[in-house]
Amino acid sequence: MHKFEKSDATSLSEMVLADIVSADTVTEYFLDCVELREQSIKAFVSFDPSRVRAQAAQLKKSHAKGLLAGVPVGIKDNYDTMDHPTRFYSPIYDDNCPSRDAHVVSLLRQAGAVIMGKTHTTEFAYMHTGPTRNPHDLDRTPGSSSAGSAAGMAAGFFPIALGTQTAGSLIKPASYCGLYAFKPSYGLVSLEGVKPLAPSFDTVGWYGRSVRDLALMAQVLIPGFPKLNHERNFRSFGFCRTARWDQIDEDVAKALEAAVEDLRSAGHQVSEVLLPEEFAAVFDDHLLINDCEGARSFSKELKMHPDKLSVELLAMFERARLTTWEQESAAKRRLARLAPVLEEIFRPFDAVLGASCGSVAPLGLEVTGPSDFCKFWMAFGLPQINIPLGRPAGALPVGLQVVGGFRSDCHLLQAAEQIDAVLRNGKHSATSTIV
Amino acid sequence: MHKFEKSDATSLSEMVLADIVSADTVTEYFLDCVELREQSIKAFVSFDPSRVRAQAAQLKKSHAKGLLAGVPVGIKDNYDTMDHPTRFYSPIYDDNCPSRDAHVVSLLRQAGAVIMGKTHTTEFAYMHTGPTRNPHDLDRTPGSSSAGSAAGMAAGFFPIALGTQTAGSLIKPASYCGLYAFKPSYGLVSLEGVKPLAPSFDTVGWYGRSVRDLALMAQVLIPGFPKLNHERNFRSFGFCRTARWDQIDEDVAKALEAAVEDLRSAGHQVSEVLLPEEFAAVFDDHLLINDCEGARSFSKELKMHPDKLSVELLAMFERARLTTWEQESAAKRRLARLAPVLEEIFRPFDAVLGASCGSVAPLGLEVTGPSDFCKFWMAFGLPQINIPLGRPAGALPVGLQVVGGFRSDCHLLQAAEQIDAVLRNGKHSATSTIV
Repeated sequence: MHKFEKSDATSLSEMVLADIVSADTVTEYFLDCVELREQSIKAFVSFDPSRVRAQAAQLKKSHAKGLLAGVPVGIKDNYDTMDHPTRFYSPIYDDNCPSRDAHVVSLLRQAGAVIMGKTHTTEFAYMHTGPTRNPHDLDRTPGSSSAGSAAGMAAGFFPIALGTQTAGSLIKPASYCGLYAFKPSYGLVSLEGVKPLAPSFDTVGWYGRSVRDLALMAQVLIPGFPKLNHERNFRSFGFCRTARWDQIDEDVAKALEAAVEDLRSAGHQVSEVLLPEEFAAVFDDHLLINDCEGARSFSKELKMHPDKLSVELLAMFERARLTTWEQESAAKRRLARLAPVLEEIFRPFDAVLGASCGSVAPLGLEVTGPSDFCKFWMAFGLPQINIPLGRPAGALPVGLQVVGGFRSDCHLLQAAEQIDAVLRNGKHSATSTIV
Repeated sequence: MHKFEKSDATSLSEMVLADIVSADTVTEYFLDCVELREQSIKAFVSFDPSRVRAQAAQLKKSHAKGLLAGVPVGIKDNYDTMDHPTRFYSPIYDDNCPSRDAHVVSLLRQAGAVIMGKTHTTEFAYMHTGPTRNPHDLDRTPGSSSAGSAAGMAAGFFPIALGTQTAGSLIKPASYCGLYAFKPSYGLVSLEGVKPLAPSFDTVGWYGRSVRDLALMAQVLIPGFPKLNHERNFRSFGFCRTARWDQIDEDVAKALEAAVEDLRSAGHQVSEVLLPEEFAAVFDDHLLINDCEGARSFSKELKMHPDKLSVELLAMFERARLTTWEQESAAKRRLARLAPVLEEIFRPFDAVLGASCGSVAPLGLEVTGPSDFCKFWMAFGLPQINIPLGRPAGALPVGLQVVGGFRSDCHLLQAAEQIDAVLRNGKHSATSTIV
């Protein structure tokens, strides 16, 4: 039953390609995991074991050779899929059955992945939460909006999964659920077939069981992505608290500072990064742009089905209504002017470290906590990685965020691989992703 | 038969809303226009008069009250539509019937517009051309890629139409076909349901029969777009030749310079704008990024159906294959650094004028000429308008391009309205859009 519990997607596909195990053996294992815990987790909004088995059988028959041969994957329900309805957790789209797969779903299929099902998102990947529970504590949120993909990862339903991020929708659930996550640079991955929220920020991202899984997915989903050179030696990191450090829980701060100590003990230089004061406005600028763009993105739903929208979404429309065109333009202009300043700040470092979230997963399923430590970097489209920190038995996960310069995605993945290796051998070893 | 030949969308909707004419009377007129010339123009890839009549009858019955009540519209075939197949002029998508409308198609329907049909695009809005002919001269291209929308406009099949632009796909056909066209600032209009080509540049745009039509469409497609204040007085314009002025045909240069003279005679200041030398690299940087992003966008089609792609698209893949990750990053970085420089250059002016194209529509249907004068501004996401210049009887259309600062879309439309009024009263009056 637990034979693939420790296997990451990379080793699973290697075993399938080497005919050590078959795609259907792998699939049956993960179907068993779903069977065991889905009733309490509620990761899936659409799941059909027969369709999963049909894919595995087809792969076995055709001796699939892709980079993800036989690897089960969870797909957030804001990606169009031909073989599952696509509902965005909105009653408006109860009957929506897309005619084509989203771009990245096509690429996953071509690489031999097995689509396990559609995972719960919040309404339109915004704030109104679904029924999904955090496998580490069923009374807590898994985070939002990639809730089902993150909870399904933590429950062991699949070793890789797709999410999206506009503010903190990928990294926050990774932090709360103890997952490796990668949000590439803005614009690198096609959003074809993904319902837009705030197009200035919307980005495809994914979960894996290791940093190398995150890189493997990058190879599949970003054609032409440079190959990782595992021999590189990274030395110099920044540590950036941002203007919201006062919102960090003491336990989280301690865990992050311990990780920094582990890195220093291993011979790495970690320097405090102090941002100019003007960066304190970034949080509000992100919110404002998100509101205005979101209101435009869902304007047709507001006109046709105002009664079917959540109070959270209606509040966004109301904030957008009170924001002027000039205010939105000014916010965009401020971010555009700060971007090259940040680029210079990042230049001396191989990566910049910080918090993924200010707290562990909060109690309750309806509110998922602020995304400030994620959206600060989202405002500039920078690539972000969550590395789950080690923790005592029974403690809730805490994530270390590792951020790179714009389009330094490959470099960042390499740096994260090295950081992860240090932390797993340090006093504070990184955790398994499965609970 | 010709009763609505001179009516723009704004006046048509006003007449429908005031019950002066009914939606079906308007529709029948435009259906007659299609009947008369479509066989030689080939604007439509999907057209069904019965579906058009059904929409008009429904609008009449429900006394539709939208801003585009009863106004026929052409939709480029790279927008998803529920009631027409969406084929992108690619045999891969012969049977593609989307489950939902693209965002802007929904907004058009909500505003009371009548979808006339899907108009020809080049393959995936890139370079491989379709059968559409230029109504001004059937032996000439209408331009690409929004070929069917532009030709249909010039042939009088509809008074407004949707296009898209990544390099020059909207403005070039407008210039060749003698149309008013508006490409808003990058990111303003939702691309949901539009097949991506190069996401850093892809933008929704449209044609109309007047500048006020362009503004009316902005009101419909950009919720929250500021209202035009027709009383503003614009005085100061730039005139920018860019580094490609040596590619301008003499007749085009003369027409543009005559328009500038008209503006000066009417009391406007038009100053020559000289760009720093580093801007000469923008053309190649746009091409390089377009190639790399295009190759990523169509990577799934390349993998699954390489035999069904055009030689033009395969050449793009080949160029992308020979481009390194670092070259693409460097190109993006150069554009990001030049954007604020350009912003400063634009600051003294209400708008910057220039050429839309270096020539009139070339002979032949397979090649549509360079898009340099369009893509230069696309590289920075600036809003662009084409104003058709007046011309002697029988002469081919020439377009004046009017460009604004980023997100100065409303200001730009107002400036264009004033420029257009001057030109229509000047020695070189602006042309009708219908031939």
